[in-house]
Amino acid sequence: MSSDFSFGSAYMKGRYMPVSEAAIPVLDAAYRRSDVTYDVVGVRDGAFFRLDDHINRFRASLTRLRMTPVETDDDIRVILNRIVALSGLRNAYVSMECLRGAPPPGKTRHPSNCESYLCCIAIPWVSVASDEMFRRGMHLIIPKVRRIPPDSFDPTVKNFLWGDFTQSLFEAEDAGADYAVLLDAEGNVTEGAGFNVMCIVDGTVVSPAHGALEGVTRASVFELCEELGIPTEIRDISADELRNADEIFTCTTAGGIMPASRIDGRILTNDAPGPISSQLRERFWSRRAEGWHATPVDYSVVAGSN
Amino acid sequence: MSSDFSFGSAYMKGRYMPVSEAAIPVLDAAYRRSDVTYDVVGVRDGAFFRLDDHINRFRASLTRLRMTPVETDDDIRVILNRIVALSGLRNAYVSMECLRGAPPPGKTRHPSNCESYLCCIAIPWVSVASDEMFRRGMHLIIPKVRRIPPDSFDPTVKNFLWGDFTQSLFEAEDAGADYAVLLDAEGNVTEGAGFNVMCIVDGTVVSPAHGALEGVTRASVFELCEELGIPTEIRDISADELRNADEIFTCTTAGGIMPASRIDGRILTNDAPGPISSQLRERFWSRRAEGWHATPVDYSVVAGSN
Ligand SMILES: Cc1ncc(COP(=O)(O)O)c(C=O)c1O
Ligand SMILES: Cc1ncc(COP(=O)(O)O)c(C=O)c1O
Repeated sequence: MSSDFSFGSAYMKGRYMPVSEAAIPVLDAAYRRSDVTYDVVGVRDGAFFRLDDHINRFRASLTRLRMTPVETDDDIRVILNRIVALSGLRNAYVSMECLRGAPPPGKTRHPSNCESYLCCIAIPWVSVASDEMFRRGMHLIIPKVRRIPPDSFDPTVKNFLWGDFTQSLFEAEDAGADYAVLLDAEGNVTEGAGFNVMCIVDGTVVSPAHGALEGVTRASVFELCEELGIPTEIRDISADELRNADEIFTCTTAGGIMPASRIDGRILTNDAPGPISSQLRERFWSRRAEGWHATPVDYSVVAGSN
Repeated sequence: MSSDFSFGSAYMKGRYMPVSEAAIPVLDAAYRRSDVTYDVVGVRDGAFFRLDDHINRFRASLTRLRMTPVETDDDIRVILNRIVALSGLRNAYVSMECLRGAPPPGKTRHPSNCESYLCCIAIPWVSVASDEMFRRGMHLIIPKVRRIPPDSFDPTVKNFLWGDFTQSLFEAEDAGADYAVLLDAEGNVTEGAGFNVMCIVDGTVVSPAHGALEGVTRASVFELCEELGIPTEIRDISADELRNADEIFTCTTAGGIMPASRIDGRILTNDAPGPISSQLRERFWSRRAEGWHATPVDYSVVAGSN
């Protein structure tokens, strides 16, 4: 059994399976209309990070989208623990997802005719930044494509509506860069393909007030700043202010704190990760090694099954 | 074999199967990032309608998204014919879809690391409007949610990024209406959840210039207007102009021409489908019965297999 789960494990409608067997019916609105919400919690060294924060954000997204899966928050905790234990992974990318479902035959395709349900997966740790990017700093651009605005879809509801992000990845690649930071219609910084954006201006860590997911890693950065006595601010950031910032970094569950060294060809902090960004990154991982916000995975729940 | 295909048939990566067996791997970007494009062609009375127009639009979307499935346009014609023949359906909703695929293990999740591939399905005819809506006219609202703007995702590339449309369907339901017509950021009419919008002002059939799919059914409406000597115009339409139009109708492959009778509670044309809308709808189906733009399905390709 263990070899089946070596690429990861999944839960779907009450069943556990290797992730390679988890598939979405082609008539499900989660695929046909991207009518789905999700949340990702990281597991490092055998422990979840800020598990309750992720489950709470997921529950808020479900409510917002009027999705009512049968599983309670406690059920979700049990399921996530079990899929990680089944996979045996000590470092994992763990996603909880709620799919709208397919409309029953004979009913219209209105979403309220569907029965939403959970799918959860645990796969080996994924990082937005490669080792090379961590070494040299991320190379960013500000792309032409604009972030989908909040009055079209609320970005605080974590979603798979990635058309703008995918386009931004092609623009970044065409420009020889790694990733892109999208602006909103007013020209202010929002976020990028799977990460929040922060910059350091005159010693203050600044992050956009609108148009982005309220990242759990970003919340952790604010806590670290508090511990370190670094001032923070949440406010609008124009493209020019970002380009002229002292430092820039991005942050996300899948990668932690990721310093940048270039934006639109402009070179920051000697073409290397900046000092405050690096300090925050080191502190982030040293605090985690101490068990900060950690919930250990109970691997014994599958003892004897593999 | 025939019973397996009674709910429809599918093609995926070279294989044919009942539609109930067609599923998207949970790690495919088509699901995880809605990185997918599609097109839908209708089959009525055993013939495709404007098959080449749909394949051409699909090919343009593929190019735009830098997707390169192995199948040629001729292959697609053969596949679509075969799935309809396998299903035995005389009236079908036939969708050709290109999925980005999953990133290979060890590579970053950049879309250019993926291999895109086709999935095609044929299922029993689907209609956006119910029989009741055709009888009484559609009840529309203008919702609060705005259409995803073209600088975030090009609406002429047919897509599953339906977050705005899904929200609009809940708003319509809450207001006791059937469907919603979304505005763009400037307050002009765009389209709705799976249909184009047209209105009749002083005898002219008007449709929005921007922010919507270039519908094949809409193109057919323009051809019918030409045949009938009805003037047409493509230009911006404000919310107020739509509310005060003489008639409103929506149009799509899955439903044809669908007259409206109410918008935001305002009653049009005596609370029934309007005269010009009804004339266009009748003409649409009578021309189709004559074989207008039709490509007959060759059902014999599966002779002997069921
Ligand atoms: C669009 C977007 N913004 C921001 C983030 C960062 O959020 P978190 O730190 O909670 O992982 C993510 C995470 O995947 C994301 O997808
Ligand atoms: C968003 C949207 N607009 C318009 C249309 C109508 O296009 P067509 O007439 O080519 O089917 C569709 C069809 O599904 C659609 O999804």
